[in-house]
Amino acid sequence: MTPQSPVNLWPDPGYLGPITDLYQLTMMAGYAASGMADKRATFELFVRRLPDHRSYLVFAGLEQAIGDLLRLAFSEEQATYLRSLPALSHVPDSFFEQLPYLRFEGDVWSIAEGTVVFPGETLLRVEAPLAQAQWVETYLIASLNYPTLVATKAARIVEAAQGRGCIDFGARRGHGPHVGFLAARAAYLAGFVGTSHVEASRLLGIPVYGTMAHSWIQSFGDERAAFAAFARTFPENTTLLVDTYDTLEGVRHAAAIEPPIKAIRLDSGDLAELAKAARGILDSANRQATKILASNDLNEEKIADLVRAGAPIDSFGVGTELITSRDAPALSMVYKLVAIDGVGRVKLAPAKRTYPLAKQVFRRSDGQGRFTGDHVTRWDEIVDGEPLLSCVVREGRLAKELPTLESIRDRCQVQIAALPDSLRGVDSGADYPITYSDALESEATRLGL
Amino acid sequence: MTPQSPVNLWPDPGYLGPITDLYQLTMMAGYAASGMADKRATFELFVRRLPDHRSYLVFAGLEQAIGDLLRLAFSEEQATYLRSLPALSHVPDSFFEQLPYLRFEGDVWSIAEGTVVFPGETLLRVEAPLAQAQWVETYLIASLNYPTLVATKAARIVEAAQGRGCIDFGARRGHGPHVGFLAARAAYLAGFVGTSHVEASRLLGIPVYGTMAHSWIQSFGDERAAFAAFARTFPENTTLLVDTYDTLEGVRHAAAIEPPIKAIRLDSGDLAELAKAARGILDSANRQATKILASNDLNEEKIADLVRAGAPIDSFGVGTELITSRDAPALSMVYKLVAIDGVGRVKLAPAKRTYPLAKQVFRRSDGQGRFTGDHVTRWDEIVDGEPLLSCVVREGRLAKELPTLESIRDRCQVQIAALPDSLRGVDSGADYPITYSDALESEATRLGL
Repeated sequence: MTPQSPVNLWPDPGYLGPITDLYQLTMMAGYAASGMADKRATFELFVRRLPDHRSYLVFAGLEQAIGDLLRLAFSEEQATYLRSLPALSHVPDSFFEQLPYLRFEGDVWSIAEGTVVFPGETLLRVEAPLAQAQWVETYLIASLNYPTLVATKAARIVEAAQGRGCIDFGARRGHGPHVGFLAARAAYLAGFVGTSHVEASRLLGIPVYGTMAHSWIQSFGDERAAFAAFARTFPENTTLLVDTYDTLEGVRHAAAIEPPIKAIRLDSGDLAELAKAARGILDSANRQATKILASNDLNEEKIADLVRAGAPIDSFGVGTELITSRDAPALSMVYKLVAIDGVGRVKLAPAKRTYPLAKQVFRRSDGQGRFTGDHVTRWDEIVDGEPLLSCVVREGRLAKELPTLESIRDRCQVQIAALPDSLRGVDSGADYPITYSDALESEATRLGL
Repeated sequence: MTPQSPVNLWPDPGYLGPITDLYQLTMMAGYAASGMADKRATFELFVRRLPDHRSYLVFAGLEQAIGDLLRLAFSEEQATYLRSLPALSHVPDSFFEQLPYLRFEGDVWSIAEGTVVFPGETLLRVEAPLAQAQWVETYLIASLNYPTLVATKAARIVEAAQGRGCIDFGARRGHGPHVGFLAARAAYLAGFVGTSHVEASRLLGIPVYGTMAHSWIQSFGDERAAFAAFARTFPENTTLLVDTYDTLEGVRHAAAIEPPIKAIRLDSGDLAELAKAARGILDSANRQATKILASNDLNEEKIADLVRAGAPIDSFGVGTELITSRDAPALSMVYKLVAIDGVGRVKLAPAKRTYPLAKQVFRRSDGQGRFTGDHVTRWDEIVDGEPLLSCVVREGRLAKELPTLESIRDRCQVQIAALPDSLRGVDSGADYPITYSDALESEATRLGL
């Protein structure tokens, strides 16, 4: 007898509809039963608090969030499963019969990817029939929360590296095998120079980097033989990992290869000391052009220390710390109802207050283009500054061409350069000024906030 | 002009081959060029260190890791992309032409899912042609690292809850939209009672739970009307969220519903105080059967505090902290070459030493079935104790029926109950004894470790 196949947990991108919390479906059924499903709802997505050690966020993930949103749907099979749930046993059959025809048909306004953003300001706004707007909550947050977290971490790492290239090595240590795509993209848009993730590089056009693992050396048993074999196969792209047995002996073996190799990689030990010693060995062997790549649980603090110590490292491979955003692995992104049929709605729970009404965010800059603060207004107010939210989806269709990954990356670089100095650097703890318009304040007061 | 569609990052499960690091491909090409691709390699997967605040790990993710491994493949298009990479420009065409025919044809030995495991012991062993064993490294680690992290976190939360039900509410806060599947499964196998994730529940047969969001109340504007409408739609399954405006007023509104509702949910404020006050209100209204569900950034410490404080909470919804394993979001799972053609191989890099040779792990117990320590041996040694690794894949095919999720869940419960008392509980800091056989020690010494 052939054993049964393991359950395949890769979803069909055509049927992502039930990647959501059950309560979205109970509410959708309830709205239908209460005649409210088609009321025009306005939900806004924002972050409540900055994670620890962060002074800004880089907004990311919009392209995939929107792409998936536009084809979000249920299959017949998925609808049949829902009908079988005891929790939904009193829901009329018509609800389940209509599910396979449900699509998102609303509007989405959003801040552009690669923009520097802050807690308490609207990042994305959904205007849609209430049931549809409710349905997409879980998916939208799940799609935007993580890329924003990684782009933010990556921006900090890039700042710390001060011009040295940073490469995403995180694929294996992400939260499951899908995360590598999202991390490679978010890191690249925030200034990383590339990724080791082969399929992410193919799909997204990101430069791909790779050297060798310790197993290459071990499988030959002899380091010199292993190095020579690699240099034969990759004559123009030889980066050798030198720390399998004795690091400096490894550097000497690498320096002896003819023609001179492109780079060595250090992956353990005191990287500052080893890099200095390695540089000395390489230079003595007339290998001034051979670069040094370092890796080994690097993060922005360690990289800043290495740069400060003058370690002659040319580029950094960053894995676990980047892909898990290890010091701040969670982001308090939420999606809240702010209006029904244009009338403001609030929630008064302690520490979870939300301003009512659809909003716009205006960013103000000084004469040198340096950001001075954001002003949040009712959507139809016009004030000084650059309005950050624009319409990206109208009536369930893409409203405009989304920017390319390269142009998002350019935007991010300009955005970070425009931050106040007090917000930059690895140890920054400053607050960026966010203010709310009188119209919002008075509506909030009227509703008891 | 229709705007271009956003890039779809959902992979076809039939072509997961290039979800790997580029260096695996450079090495595969190098092994081919050096006539080593078909040498028999033994790689072992293990964890280097326990994450902070952990005294054991729950091994999880095997079913999906194996399922994907058995169909890991490259498409023609993916192979063509690889051929175009400058980094692989000297690799002969034959390498790329053969890629679409490459499959994993080796053997896999593994510890069973749901088993309690420790750093330094082999969790999974791959025996395969060197190039194949190298190829699958990134995918295997990415598939096992995260589920093990979440199952471990979940087991701690279940311990803290002391019999009260814990429900996975994490879908929106995971690292991307795919993570919810993996988290729902890992949490359930470690003792959670269910998930809010609709599609995970369908695919995996996990009980699904859901109530309502604040937006339900807000969309009606009036709490009593919102509660009444929900109770009408879900007469047998009414759980009402009571903290949108004033929590205790919300409890009074919920207690007034006829017939009595199933539960209320608290999602903000001082949960211990509010639960006591809510219980009082419910009991006074003759609602003794109405349960209290609590949520709001809960983790094992907060739950232990609530239980210790005697908070009358019947179940816990746990989201962000579970799905991100927030206090320990990374696990140092590695996959190392330990033998070529049966001959031991080692790596001597500081703090990254690895015992050579294929291994088996024997678990010893006392007369009461309580675990006393694990003994790691060469694969062919036979000693006292239960051997933990068994063959799950032979020559690229499933070697035996994998256990059902329910039986993995049962195993996990038995395993945790068999841990030494010193390792259980939220604050445990004890070490579990791991020893290595004389045969392994002497081979390690011989190789210079």
